[in-house]
Amino acid sequence: MNTHSSRFILLMHCPDQKGIIASVTNFIHQRNGNIVYIDQYVDRSQETFYMRIVIEGKIKTIDFQAFKSHFASELGTSFQLKCSFYQEEKLPKMAVFVSKYDHCLYDILTQQRSGKLKCEIPFIISNHIDLEGIAKQFNIPFYHIPVTKENKKSAEEKQLEILNQHDVDFIVLARYMQIVSSKLIDLYPSKIINIHHSFLPAFPGAKPYHSAFNRGVKIIGATSHYVTEELDAGPIIEQDISRVSHEHEVVDLINKGQDLERMVLLRGLKLHCDRKIMVYNNKTVVFN
Amino acid sequence: MNTHSSRFILLMHCPDQKGIIASVTNFIHQRNGNIVYIDQYVDRSQETFYMRIVIEGKIKTIDFQAFKSHFASELGTSFQLKCSFYQEEKLPKMAVFVSKYDHCLYDILTQQRSGKLKCEIPFIISNHIDLEGIAKQFNIPFYHIPVTKENKKSAEEKQLEILNQHDVDFIVLARYMQIVSSKLIDLYPSKIINIHHSFLPAFPGAKPYHSAFNRGVKIIGATSHYVTEELDAGPIIEQDISRVSHEHEVVDLINKGQDLERMVLLRGLKLHCDRKIMVYNNKTVVFN
Amino acid sequence: MNTHSSRFILLMHCPDQKGIIASVTNFIHQRNGNIVYIDQYVDRSQETFYMRIVIEGKIKTIDFQAFKSHFASELGTSFQLKCSFYQEEKLPKMAVFVSKYDHCLYDILTQQRSGKLKCEIPFIISNHIDLEGIAKQFNIPFYHIPVTKENKKSAEEKQLEILNQHDVDFIVLARYMQIVSSKLIDLYPSKIINIHHSFLPAFPGAKPYHSAFNRGVKIIGATSHYVTEELDAGPIIEQDISRVSHEHEVVDLINKGQDLERMVLLRGLKLHCDRKIMVYNNKTVVFN
Amino acid sequence: MNTHSSRFILLMHCPDQKGIIASVTNFIHQRNGNIVYIDQYVDRSQETFYMRIVIEGKIKTIDFQAFKSHFASELGTSFQLKCSFYQEEKLPKMAVFVSKYDHCLYDILTQQRSGKLKCEIPFIISNHIDLEGIAKQFNIPFYHIPVTKENKKSAEEKQLEILNQHDVDFIVLARYMQIVSSKLIDLYPSKIINIHHSFLPAFPGAKPYHSAFNRGVKIIGATSHYVTEELDAGPIIEQDISRVSHEHEVVDLINKGQDLERMVLLRGLKLHCDRKIMVYNNKTVVFN
Repeated sequence: MNTHSSRFILLMHCPDQKGIIASVTNFIHQRNGNIVYIDQYVDRSQETFYMRIVIEGKIKTIDFQAFKSHFASELGTSFQLKCSFYQEEKLPKMAVFVSKYDHCLYDILTQQRSGKLKCEIPFIISNHIDLEGIAKQFNIPFYHIPVTKENKKSAEEKQLEILNQHDVDFIVLARYMQIVSSKLIDLYPSKIINIHHSFLPAFPGAKPYHSAFNRGVKIIGATSHYVTEELDAGPIIEQDISRVSHEHEVVDLINKGQDLERMVLLRGLKLHCDRKIMVYNNKTVVFN
Repeated sequence: MNTHSSRFILLMHCPDQKGIIASVTNFIHQRNGNIVYIDQYVDRSQETFYMRIVIEGKIKTIDFQAFKSHFASELGTSFQLKCSFYQEEKLPKMAVFVSKYDHCLYDILTQQRSGKLKCEIPFIISNHIDLEGIAKQFNIPFYHIPVTKENKKSAEEKQLEILNQHDVDFIVLARYMQIVSSKLIDLYPSKIINIHHSFLPAFPGAKPYHSAFNRGVKIIGATSHYVTEELDAGPIIEQDISRVSHEHEVVDLINKGQDLERMVLLRGLKLHCDRKIMVYNNKTVVFN
Repeated sequence: MNTHSSRFILLMHCPDQKGIIASVTNFIHQRNGNIVYIDQYVDRSQETFYMRIVIEGKIKTIDFQAFKSHFASELGTSFQLKCSFYQEEKLPKMAVFVSKYDHCLYDILTQQRSGKLKCEIPFIISNHIDLEGIAKQFNIPFYHIPVTKENKKSAEEKQLEILNQHDVDFIVLARYMQIVSSKLIDLYPSKIINIHHSFLPAFPGAKPYHSAFNRGVKIIGATSHYVTEELDAGPIIEQDISRVSHEHEVVDLINKGQDLERMVLLRGLKLHCDRKIMVYNNKTVVFN
Repeated sequence: MNTHSSRFILLMHCPDQKGIIASVTNFIHQRNGNIVYIDQYVDRSQETFYMRIVIEGKIKTIDFQAFKSHFASELGTSFQLKCSFYQEEKLPKMAVFVSKYDHCLYDILTQQRSGKLKCEIPFIISNHIDLEGIAKQFNIPFYHIPVTKENKKSAEEKQLEILNQHDVDFIVLARYMQIVSSKLIDLYPSKIINIHHSFLPAFPGAKPYHSAFNRGVKIIGATSHYVTEELDAGPIIEQDISRVSHEHEVVDLINKGQDLERMVLLRGLKLHCDRKIMVYNNKTVVFN
């Protein structure tokens, strides 16, 4: 007889209205669900209510499929809910796109191996061959798909084919030095995470450390964000900074910055894998 | 006819149990209260549930006194609730104790005048005369009560008399350089806030900057906390830090530290005045 | 007989070349000067050498005027030095420009009174009357000079007259909500310090907290900088940041930000008053 | 003909005295050395002068061996100098000691492979077998030397033998969960670097995250330091911190802390490998 517990994550948002918390928590208790965590947030300017609930239940007493469909039928319509359910034990599949820099890739692979980054990594795609050795070292399939002006379209077709084959849930651009196409962005909405090596919205685009050096800033940063049509303008997930001074040359900014990049990207990926992020209105609600 | 709205803050904790959020939020809605903010936290090791709710209601349709007593009778017993109610517009009265340093005092007075620190300051007590000029500048009564080994008891009697006369809600020790007695601490439990000029629990007691310098730390800090019997061991409200290097002498640590002290003390005072802190188990839950 | 010591600060820069440190330190020792602090920096891309030296000498054995002129004649030409000498005990005179916000003004006045901000404040100029009470409280002359589209020129003439009368060394714009004219900027090159309420170069111009909120950043900042012709693009002196989340509304950003503003402005002013800043190439060398 | 340049790092300290900078820089210029970086610091309480100089010279025109011995004979005695010379291109050999945690080990190996951590890693020693797979993955010899109460002495003999065989320059304890003996400490003075998982001097000894949780601190930290006889009391190299709140359980502190640990340890190791640290008086001068 199966008596072990299982966990379920519910992300939802709806127009703000009275009684919503009480109704949802009542619903869960009536079905023998135990609320382990509950976080909510009301955006007053948009009059929108956001909630994340972690529900625990004994496998034999709670039926998540029934729960899910009843939830939609009983509460979904009356409250105009939009919701997503995730089973905690089912890890998301993450595709990794890289180019030549190894620092983010190394951090992703070692943190995943240590069990800190809770996802599966079915493969790595790169437009350069440089990092193939690392893929081998970690025993992960590596697809080398060069991208040039001429073959951009066919290269992307190959990428999509591989993404489909592996039934990927989301994509990380771990210092992938190509702009991804609208088609890919449309297929993975709020599901492509990029690391930008500046404190956005300062210094978007290429060579941000050079721009930061030229401007003489006293603090540099890094930003992980979801990719949208507009370059470097998608919903920000996480940012962090590091102090610099006149003594730091461009190469020092790059070195300090790469430590920021790997930390900020990893934190963003962990939040996404743990289903702690909701995207709205080109911003993120992060229940941390 | 009075149609304006009023706000009410409810802090509560109780043994963790199913249905508590639903019951409380239902209770509020049935009485025409509108939940403006709701924060809760479950301490799993202690199995205790903590919640802070800001309730808004039209004065003519909601009766806070009735609300308060019904809340206690209907929910209080069944859930073993401990709760406190505060009316947002009624500012707490804060007594200020100082000695010779002016930086925290200046910050307290200017932030209160700017409306950022939401409290009344009926008077300042000091064991030294040095800061009397500042009290005058801000037009606040100043009581000079010297404290010596011999007069410690009678000095405290005078302090208590003044505190009683003004019906003070809580006390801030703004670099007050005397250890307060058990009697005062008992009369104001979780209601005396101190600023300690180190990153507690490192360097408790006197001369922490000298100790930090001698130890060669690379980061210094400050800590605001509630005062308990054990010196510098009460519940921590807020901490912050600043980087230092071998180039900083003791006087530099003191200067950098004083900026930390005033920031960390002010943040602690604001959180207390805004009723965002619950004390339990010698720790704080800060709903920020 | 006068035997007390005096201190002298020397800021200099020149094309980078061999022997410069040795020559300068030799020069000082030969004239009975004692080097208390020495900091230097080489900008390799510009091939420029920067140095700050604090020299101490007994008044009766060192002649600073002779020192100064010999320094220029003996070393100045051969090394193409540009240098400035300051006597430590002669405090700079700082004019304060404000509008309606009081937080930076309060911090400036209280820190100056506490002896932490080492300057004289001969007067406050404001285009609004709101802060006159604070000027009175601190017993500082307050000039109310309203600025409108029509009177902008004559208002500025009045400002210049007052600046001249008081022989002001530099100007702080402590949330002064008017754009200062090219004329003023030309008269006080690298001598007007502004606080901008964002993490420049992000969100220049008006209403940066609203822009930061709309962009959904996870970190806000403040920047103190010298004023140049191009708006919010002058040499950055100091920056700091504070974390925010989706829970923070615009008003929260403003409140958190104002604490940053006063800290970042004060740090910039202290560095300037202590002659620790050299401006070059639209950047700052900060010897801290 | 060999015309390429070579770099040389000179670390020195001596009693503070007039003329020392001029003498040293003159000495270097007379021998065709070019000063690339120069940093100095005077500890006024100890009246000691510290300096780090990076000297560059053409191999054919500068003779570093002669330079080194002349430096000692000409300047060493008169100024009572203590100095160390390092050739920049000769990488130090670092022994890695680990137990069961992989996060610091992974960071060390990947950063070394990326060329950011400039050292050789001849082997890994561990008292547990758990991390052998990682050593294999990076193709580094792994010595499993179990340590028990009974075999402590013979285990250490084995460690020393391996250290000697490989002519190791310094040792990193990358979450090595054994206290190292006085003998090893004496053989490697200021050459064993440990990462302690708290903000020292708070929470020395075992289980610091549990202690931090129980104390209810609002900030946790990590500290890299040289190992001395007294446990967790050696010279601090680098520290960093992370904010926590009442919502974080012990496991959260551990997870957040491990990210601090790997960053703080790596920064300490890089500073040591780049010869930027001088140890004195149980503190560090870090020329960064």
